[in-house]
Amino acid sequence: MANNKYCVIMAGGIGTRFWPMSRLSRPKQFLDILGTGKSFIRHTYERFAKIVPAENFLVVTNDKYKAQVLEHLPELDASQILCEPVGRNTAPCIAYAAYRLMRQNPDAEMIVTPSDHLILNEEDFRAIIAECMEFASTHDALMTVGIKPTRPETGYGYIQVSNNDPISKVKCFTEKPNLELAQVFIQTGEFFWNSGIFIWKVRSIIEAFEKYLPEHHALFSGVMRAPDAETERRIVETAFSECRAISIDYGIMEKADNVYVRCGEFGWSDVGTWGSVYQQSRKDRYANAIPPEGCYVYDTRSSIVSLPKEKIAVISGLKEYIVVDTEDVLMICPRAEEQNIKKFIDEVKFHNGDKHI
Amino acid sequence: MANNKYCVIMAGGIGTRFWPMSRLSRPKQFLDILGTGKSFIRHTYERFAKIVPAENFLVVTNDKYKAQVLEHLPELDASQILCEPVGRNTAPCIAYAAYRLMRQNPDAEMIVTPSDHLILNEEDFRAIIAECMEFASTHDALMTVGIKPTRPETGYGYIQVSNNDPISKVKCFTEKPNLELAQVFIQTGEFFWNSGIFIWKVRSIIEAFEKYLPEHHALFSGVMRAPDAETERRIVETAFSECRAISIDYGIMEKADNVYVRCGEFGWSDVGTWGSVYQQSRKDRYANAIPPEGCYVYDTRSSIVSLPKEKIAVISGLKEYIVVDTEDVLMICPRAEEQNIKKFIDEVKFHNGDKHI
Repeated sequence: MANNKYCVIMAGGIGTRFWPMSRLSRPKQFLDILGTGKSFIRHTYERFAKIVPAENFLVVTNDKYKAQVLEHLPELDASQILCEPVGRNTAPCIAYAAYRLMRQNPDAEMIVTPSDHLILNEEDFRAIIAECMEFASTHDALMTVGIKPTRPETGYGYIQVSNNDPISKVKCFTEKPNLELAQVFIQTGEFFWNSGIFIWKVRSIIEAFEKYLPEHHALFSGVMRAPDAETERRIVETAFSECRAISIDYGIMEKADNVYVRCGEFGWSDVGTWGSVYQQSRKDRYANAIPPEGCYVYDTRSSIVSLPKEKIAVISGLKEYIVVDTEDVLMICPRAEEQNIKKFIDEVKFHNGDKHI
Repeated sequence: MANNKYCVIMAGGIGTRFWPMSRLSRPKQFLDILGTGKSFIRHTYERFAKIVPAENFLVVTNDKYKAQVLEHLPELDASQILCEPVGRNTAPCIAYAAYRLMRQNPDAEMIVTPSDHLILNEEDFRAIIAECMEFASTHDALMTVGIKPTRPETGYGYIQVSNNDPISKVKCFTEKPNLELAQVFIQTGEFFWNSGIFIWKVRSIIEAFEKYLPEHHALFSGVMRAPDAETERRIVETAFSECRAISIDYGIMEKADNVYVRCGEFGWSDVGTWGSVYQQSRKDRYANAIPPEGCYVYDTRSSIVSLPKEKIAVISGLKEYIVVDTEDVLMICPRAEEQNIKKFIDEVKFHNGDKHI
């Protein structure tokens, strides 16, 4: 009997928030920012490889990252890497994967996951995913995984549950609330962070595309019947160039009435900023997150330092700084100013072109 | 007629004050810390090359820097590089050069100069050197060059003059006074910084060695009669291993009674610390001494930044810092703490060995 469980890893991000460590040519999913010994995408793969066989993975990424994906996930065949000619947010990415899966196996049950998040408690996490898969396989349900919030984070999307059951119907989605609203959300206990992880039967999501994103259905459904790779490539080329960029949350999850959430706690972080890397990192007794070897600090606290392999640093007198050194770019910046990284990049780009971006 | 003017460049320093830019393998004299396009030793050579022919230079350096000297001064022949097997301060270094010159030309007039100082006004400087040479050639005099002090520096040696003539007999030498004394020195107007530049006939200095450092005379005078390079090498090997380490100031200049000084102003600095590099560097309007290209600073002032070629830096929120980035070491340190660099080196050495020293 064929294994119907599939995992789609979304790995098209070009995130600049970790510049100069992340680059257009080497975005966050391929980095090991936390120094774990493995890239985010490798961790993501291994996390799901315990419940999904290697041949049932698909990775959706940009054309230019295909070789890097195969390098990090040598278990996969090149045909399992779906290339977006251009990023169009999550709905087109998921549409492509869904119609491809529909062609391969109309009974497919599909997990969709970001490629660059951190999950500390993988066992609890897999138990929750298993529950979701069980539920999705027996219901026409679009499942999402919610995270019990630990702080009034204003950078995340929130999911409101309609009851306290382990699996609850979703009452509503709210993108990036302001601080007051986020505080209220937490107090009520009804709101959970949206992890961006989805579970559904491929039939269910395709039905949802037909209904809520008919334009995307029209552009991508040809993939379902593509007789060969070249035809698929041409369909996808057209579809991405013509389709609207839209998130799956906004395009489908907020509109559909069969959306469910399984909330849990399993040490999740989207590791979206140096601040969150700092939070997740092991600290020395002065609260510095620094490499375990070769970084000598004096009168320095609450700082985070990242160095190239083999390089040493002597740092004196920094309080709450980010120091990121790479082969060709050094960045030193107060932790409180990390939102300026985009501004830094713009200025470097203006003067030096793309070379250091 | 043979040109009797000779210039001896002392280039044996292993200065660690510019770590991590300076290294045991590449000390300060071979660096272009100020970004002038030429190393200190190259500037020193060119400064004197206008008054001394290339074949009349000698460079005294450590064995291990011989190749680097020839690289920076390709005009010289390998026989003009005198190698110290081990550094023993300036008296042995000058003894070696003096006895070698005595063999080559007993009528030699000898300039001795450090290899790693900065002189901004070279024309005025050369005029002063010419005066000194004129005086030394007609007197049995040990000449030194004094610098009009601009601040009560406690790290320098001072020379007290006995009168206001351009060339004055020296009344006394004082090494590194404390701050109160340095302030008094400046108020009197009788005290000048010791530049470490000397001018004398080779006969005069050899006479002084016989009289004030007979031990060094005994060890080094064999060089005068060495029939070949190999014999010289053996004599020098023994002499350096057995002789006392002592400075020419302490060993001879403070004791001799034929010591004269020519004082002047010509934009001199020994560029002995990052602080003095900062003083000598061109600043941006926030008083930062940073590379003219590729260094982007925000909310940063009175800081000095040194980067490897081709590397860019984005620096935010630093006030009065030293940032020195090299291929394998990054150092970030408040300017006020630069005296700790030796401590940093010791700790790095303790943990990592000599690799980064």
